[in-house]
Amino acid sequence: MGLPVTSTLARRHARIRQSLDALSLDALVVIAFPNIRYLTNHVGSAGIVVLSRDAVHLLIDFRYEEAVRTLQTSAAACPGLRTWPVPASYDEALLTCLQEIGVATVGFEAAHLTVSRHDWFLRTIAARQAMITLRATERVVEQVRMVKDPDEIGTLSDAASRMTAVADATFRTIRPGVSERAIASGLEAAMRDAGYERLAFDTIVASGPHAALPHYRAGDRLLAAGDLVVLDFGGVLDGYCCDLTRTISVGPASAEARRVYEAVLDAQQAAIAAVRPGVETHEVDAAARRLLEDRGLGAAFGHGTGHGLGLDVHEEPRIGRARADSPSVSLQPGMVFTIEPGAYLPGWGGVRIEDDVLVTGDGCQLLTSVTRELLEL
Amino acid sequence: MGLPVTSTLARRHARIRQSLDALSLDALVVIAFPNIRYLTNHVGSAGIVVLSRDAVHLLIDFRYEEAVRTLQTSAAACPGLRTWPVPASYDEALLTCLQEIGVATVGFEAAHLTVSRHDWFLRTIAARQAMITLRATERVVEQVRMVKDPDEIGTLSDAASRMTAVADATFRTIRPGVSERAIASGLEAAMRDAGYERLAFDTIVASGPHAALPHYRAGDRLLAAGDLVVLDFGGVLDGYCCDLTRTISVGPASAEARRVYEAVLDAQQAAIAAVRPGVETHEVDAAARRLLEDRGLGAAFGHGTGHGLGLDVHEEPRIGRARADSPSVSLQPGMVFTIEPGAYLPGWGGVRIEDDVLVTGDGCQLLTSVTRELLEL
Repeated sequence: MGLPVTSTLARRHARIRQSLDALSLDALVVIAFPNIRYLTNHVGSAGIVVLSRDAVHLLIDFRYEEAVRTLQTSAAACPGLRTWPVPASYDEALLTCLQEIGVATVGFEAAHLTVSRHDWFLRTIAARQAMITLRATERVVEQVRMVKDPDEIGTLSDAASRMTAVADATFRTIRPGVSERAIASGLEAAMRDAGYERLAFDTIVASGPHAALPHYRAGDRLLAAGDLVVLDFGGVLDGYCCDLTRTISVGPASAEARRVYEAVLDAQQAAIAAVRPGVETHEVDAAARRLLEDRGLGAAFGHGTGHGLGLDVHEEPRIGRARADSPSVSLQPGMVFTIEPGAYLPGWGGVRIEDDVLVTGDGCQLLTSVTRELLEL
Repeated sequence: MGLPVTSTLARRHARIRQSLDALSLDALVVIAFPNIRYLTNHVGSAGIVVLSRDAVHLLIDFRYEEAVRTLQTSAAACPGLRTWPVPASYDEALLTCLQEIGVATVGFEAAHLTVSRHDWFLRTIAARQAMITLRATERVVEQVRMVKDPDEIGTLSDAASRMTAVADATFRTIRPGVSERAIASGLEAAMRDAGYERLAFDTIVASGPHAALPHYRAGDRLLAAGDLVVLDFGGVLDGYCCDLTRTISVGPASAEARRVYEAVLDAQQAAIAAVRPGVETHEVDAAARRLLEDRGLGAAFGHGTGHGLGLDVHEEPRIGRARADSPSVSLQPGMVFTIEPGAYLPGWGGVRIEDDVLVTGDGCQLLTSVTRELLEL
């Protein structure tokens, strides 16, 4: 799909400028890299954006100047872009930029700016006697990013559908005696072959008792007959992430393995069935949780049901219990997130099943299409 | 090497407790994950540590409980560890922990805590009428991490030395017509074969004009005779990072390519020759910079000369010009960092040469041992 085109960026800028109006801000300082990429198509591990009423100011150091010049001659050029050089410190350059463009009330991303940097800005604004007031903002760009535009849905859908080939290639290699690490290497090679530019996160291959550790990665353990194996892997395509988990059995599954697997699969189906516009994220989580509780596995499901997918592999909306620091969100068409209930029994093993879904006008669509039957390999 | 043993962790804790004394703090809240790993051997993408005078409190959610139990029965057990469950919000659980253990003056990591979280803590402390005063601290754990202990030097040295096999395997595959991406894939496969658990960063293979872009990654461009190709790659071994760059020529190098290469190599040698205890980081940078300026390439060298290596691929000390927000550091034995000058000529190409060095009692030792001659492949 390549990068979003100029008109897509212009629509994103317009939405942020609506927030500037609502918050009575002259400009928003954007420091989170995925937010910078979302607004400018600039991809880098450095950069600051100042989005004002009439321009998008991009501060970049020498390393990125040529890449941005090339970007600006393409169909993905950022509209209204003005680049500012950063000879030494980004934060020094930012204050100079804010003074030169003459903005008085400036929002910053409180969830990304550290206390150290904020204190430095306050001290330096005072020392320079600059007429700048900083105001904390929350989730201004993230709220726009939460509902994907058609370009993004195309890319996310492409990224998710390529998981099928990765799973097919990898499942063939699973047999007793193969190490977790060898399977992880195979998954990663298959992801490269499928065209992903990088891994979305460190691949998890957790076999036997390791499957009880939801964030185990992959080790030297050799698969043995009767193991359940949790495989959790994801790739990045044109900047966008997909994320899939399957649990397979090495040889015939025990009755207990079947029971736990069926419970997790039913919980996942219940959560997927709950997804439609207007439903709250905590209700989707509750649908999965209630089912596992009914099967006596409530205590074995210690994490949330899912997370948003986009430029970040974990972004909004969070599909979990409502919390004071992360309230529930009402689902809207265009949101994309995972549904991934699990059950973990220390010493025994565990099961997790994860797919990626897109909220549609009247329900949801699965973006991943790998079989969810319990495979006995 | 595996994880640092209990006695190593105890020495690290003792050094942090000296800082608590110096700063008149009852405890330090540690939220940066590499710092948490450094102090506890807990590896995870969640967790908070409260290091008090008499204990190391580790807050973890359900996903990590079994991994920590296993850790605590091993030779790498964290001394004085007390785990606290996190039923929902980490920050809620942290305040509860601080209240229960009865600490009054608590340092936090200002370079890692966001303004959002800090504001939430202040509001919630007031609402709970808790007798807790938060104090911003800077670099308490980072300063200890900057000087590596023998365990770490062993691991970093092992990680760096394995780069030789990776380079040998990869250089053999370089010839006209091969794509940058294919070479990057080969580098990554060779890093896995060499035993690295993951990549330290996204691999860079920048050929021809792309070599003028210091943070280009790898694309579809096919190598052509006469190209300079910058290869920048690194792996992680037992949590510790190595980072190497070589620039090679596809077929015979032009006179201009040789001239730029020799200048960058001489700049690197000058910087390496400057490294010894007591020298300031900005002097090491100046040694490389002066040489490139003398050869008319000062403007072509737009980045710093190097960065510390350890649990992070970019950590302290920074080897660059002294800045208000990042002052110069006096070198000490046990510091490990890169030396990586470069010269980038837009439209033409570029050269970067990078090795990893350990500061010793009277100079430095190269940890990487890949040839620095200009290879014509």
